[in-house]
Amino acid sequence: MAKESVEARLMGLADVVIDAAKKKKDPEFQIPVRALSNVEFNEKKRLIMMKDATTGRNFFNLGMARKFMQTMLVGDALAELQRADLTTSLREIYYRTKHTLKDSNENTFDGQDESDPIIEDLEVTLEALREELHVAAEGRGSVVGNVTIVDNGDTIDCTRAGKAGHTVPSIVEEPGIRIKKCTADFILLIEKATQFNRLSEDKFWKKHNCVLITGNGQPPRGVRRLCRRIHDEYKCPVYVLVDNDPWGYYIYSVVKQGSINLAFESERMAMPDAKFIGLSSFDPESHKLPRNVGIRLEDRDISRAKELLAYPWFQKKEWQKEIKNMLASGLKFELDALANKNFQYLTTTYLPKKLKDKDWLD
Amino acid sequence: MAKESVEARLMGLADVVIDAAKKKKDPEFQIPVRALSNVEFNEKKRLIMMKDATTGRNFFNLGMARKFMQTMLVGDALAELQRADLTTSLREIYYRTKHTLKDSNENTFDGQDESDPIIEDLEVTLEALREELHVAAEGRGSVVGNVTIVDNGDTIDCTRAGKAGHTVPSIVEEPGIRIKKCTADFILLIEKATQFNRLSEDKFWKKHNCVLITGNGQPPRGVRRLCRRIHDEYKCPVYVLVDNDPWGYYIYSVVKQGSINLAFESERMAMPDAKFIGLSSFDPESHKLPRNVGIRLEDRDISRAKELLAYPWFQKKEWQKEIKNMLASGLKFELDALANKNFQYLTTTYLPKKLKDKDWLD
Repeated sequence: MAKESVEARLMGLADVVIDAAKKKKDPEFQIPVRALSNVEFNEKKRLIMMKDATTGRNFFNLGMARKFMQTMLVGDALAELQRADLTTSLREIYYRTKHTLKDSNENTFDGQDESDPIIEDLEVTLEALREELHVAAEGRGSVVGNVTIVDNGDTIDCTRAGKAGHTVPSIVEEPGIRIKKCTADFILLIEKATQFNRLSEDKFWKKHNCVLITGNGQPPRGVRRLCRRIHDEYKCPVYVLVDNDPWGYYIYSVVKQGSINLAFESERMAMPDAKFIGLSSFDPESHKLPRNVGIRLEDRDISRAKELLAYPWFQKKEWQKEIKNMLASGLKFELDALANKNFQYLTTTYLPKKLKDKDWLD
Repeated sequence: MAKESVEARLMGLADVVIDAAKKKKDPEFQIPVRALSNVEFNEKKRLIMMKDATTGRNFFNLGMARKFMQTMLVGDALAELQRADLTTSLREIYYRTKHTLKDSNENTFDGQDESDPIIEDLEVTLEALREELHVAAEGRGSVVGNVTIVDNGDTIDCTRAGKAGHTVPSIVEEPGIRIKKCTADFILLIEKATQFNRLSEDKFWKKHNCVLITGNGQPPRGVRRLCRRIHDEYKCPVYVLVDNDPWGYYIYSVVKQGSINLAFESERMAMPDAKFIGLSSFDPESHKLPRNVGIRLEDRDISRAKELLAYPWFQKKEWQKEIKNMLASGLKFELDALANKNFQYLTTTYLPKKLKDKDWLD
């Protein structure tokens, strides 16, 4: 999406106010409703998506005037970013737009909890990803392997990025970031840094012709966008490697079909073809992991797993079996537990077998 | 320190047991005491350091037998890492060494809280940094600017590492990591990713000939070691940029003279010449930041600041003034608050003025 276009859409907000003022009318714009009631799982696209309910935001309405004013201030700051070609954070947007209203003690914003939702409103209203609004989320992640990325003019060959790898940018959009080349057969998206380090140290990507990416926990937006872009632009399959616990399943499901909270971004962020390569609740037995390296499921794990069982996107027979088997075992297992076999078990045995047997869940 | 040497020291532990067994004696070794009582601020070296109290660890002692056994198991796993030239995490050491003792229900380790302290014991006993034992801490951080690093055979020119930068390795030791070249006048160690992104996007390092490093919060060990090595090997001054709050002061103090918990590592990790470049509690006034972008000090901030005032390493007149001024204002300020002036204020005004006026604290 060209930069002019986002700026034009932001300026369109201001036009609403000017037009209304000229006509001596109440300025109003429509904002899509960001609530569970307006979210659905689109079976055909296999994505969690927003439905099309909207709500009006008016200036001449006691309950809305403050939010209206805030929307204009944030829109103004975002337009400033576009014009100067700068990126920033949610927190800095808050500070930039905060001031005390003239002849009053009233602050435009009392906290970041007021400015963040406004930015989300603008994302959905203007149909612009947060990154296109030049607002970066937390950057946290690394990439190595058979992919070459142009990061703001510098060409990064990720086969020569050391063991630590290139930092995954927090904003992975054109024109700043280009995926120049990718010869990999697949992307392995790894939940935790420990396994990324192991596989990078062992140059797993070289032997198995792949790209390794970690987000150090729940993958941040930049990591998801990088995977998605390589996946789209080079038809490169994505395998997700997470702990065997409800949190691991959840990470996978967000990568695959998006999340309820960010349903409006699923079409740009999610990868419905992503596969779950492990840990599966059947792995501890097939790999003969001793029970004492399992961790007893806590009550909240059990209730979370039961919630997952009910989600439309976990209705496949294999998934029901997978989750129920974890519940029946009463245990969860971390990827780190594979070290109980030996330090390189993940690299030399676990993953090669998974790939050979095509042993993954969809 | 050569690899053989660490392995030899680990094998020395086993020799203690064998020698004692041959002599039919109780195997024992001495471990330096890791407790506040055995820590002091060395005024001459300007480092928080361990004193030399030690305690014996015996096998034939009901209270120590378990720990003795655990020490041997961890030592064995660490020797395995040395021989295979592999690195791993604290958590994987735990899993690797966990098993059920034969003919019993007794686990060698019940949790990682039992194996972590053993690794620290071995660090101090063998005088080997955790990194030299091949145990990586959390990796979290990025570097850009006028430095060239060799990361496991790949040469990373950090002037060409994009905006996101090279990931700071979790282990920054020879021979894996070499600092091949550094032409920078200084290192700027930045607490938070937002400011790193700002300065990297603006190529601040180019105009001011420096290296930018962030640890995304309290700098992890790899970030501290990278700074320290560039600082040592290229006589490159280090400036620390943190929020103006007790946590920011604390981050600076750990970077500068080490921490009480890891006193045994100060000589390898700390940089007593590091300077505090901001935010200072005097900055909001001199830069005319509105009071409403300050955050009211909470009770715990106030009590933490009072603790800092009492530390020997904050006794300089300027530091007492700095901290007392924060307390008197009743406010703390985040670096992000500079965005209230404009999005590039940090790059174009705040830091250039600080550097020109040599306006920092020692």
